[in-house]
Amino acid sequence: MPDILHRIGIKSSSPNDAYKALTAIEGLSGWWTTDTQGESKVGGVVKFRFGDLGGFDMKVLELDPAKRVQWQVVDGPEEWIGTKVSFDLKQDGDYTIVLFNHQGWKEPGEFMSHCSTKWAIFLMSLKSLVETGKGAPHPNDVMISNWH
Amino acid sequence: MPDILHRIGIKSSSPNDAYKALTAIEGLSGWWTTDTQGESKVGGVVKFRFGDLGGFDMKVLELDPAKRVQWQVVDGPEEWIGTKVSFDLKQDGDYTIVLFNHQGWKEPGEFMSHCSTKWAIFLMSLKSLVETGKGAPHPNDVMISNWH
Repeated sequence: MPDILHRIGIKSSSPNDAYKALTAIEGLSGWWTTDTQGESKVGGVVKFRFGDLGGFDMKVLELDPAKRVQWQVVDGPEEWIGTKVSFDLKQDGDYTIVLFNHQGWKEPGEFMSHCSTKWAIFLMSLKSLVETGKGAPHPNDVMISNWH
Repeated sequence: MPDILHRIGIKSSSPNDAYKALTAIEGLSGWWTTDTQGESKVGGVVKFRFGDLGGFDMKVLELDPAKRVQWQVVDGPEEWIGTKVSFDLKQDGDYTIVLFNHQGWKEPGEFMSHCSTKWAIFLMSLKSLVETGKGAPHPNDVMISNWH
């Protein structure tokens, strides 16, 4: 089964900052979508909405402070349901490295390719949020195509 | 074997513009790296250099005007050698859709994750080049981490 993989490095003295941006509702609202609500605790569900484009409900599977966050998609586009999204953090000198994995896709396809590129763009928004205090979450996200 | 997949949409009235940016040396120099040389014809080799970071030699396997470009890596980082990079183009209304595939990786890993994100950034540079006449090729590319 194909995965979407990404790696970014955030200029930050501690992985705690990236961890906060990946777990606090205020943090998630600052880089992925401003319309984020729910309970970001293990077993809780966080709801990400993108206006007319719909959204995703993520069940929180793992929260390991400053190290790892994993979600499972429990509602959203059919191709996403059941897939798992994880962020592994580690410190490398002045950088917090984020290893991203979106796994469990049944098959590759044009929508998966779109999501791969769009995840890269949102991870750059996460990087910007932690480094500068300002990300580019929906509805101010960078458009990559006719699919937004 | 895992692949890197991406999809972007370029605002353009014809796929000929993206095809030119993917095949002419001047085009390639405008979005990937300014240090691009070689013969962009089937069987030819195009050399992409990124200063101290090294580079890639790509043998041109397929050139199907306005439709498809495929290269095979014949020199570069060990993980890249033998892998194939393709760009499939199609027109969808006001957009030229680029489906990108970098296939043949022996195994996933941190370097592949890095390359996945960096390809997304360079594809956005390709989009910018075709839409505005100005891309962000190396050495003016967007930095994503401590690995550049």
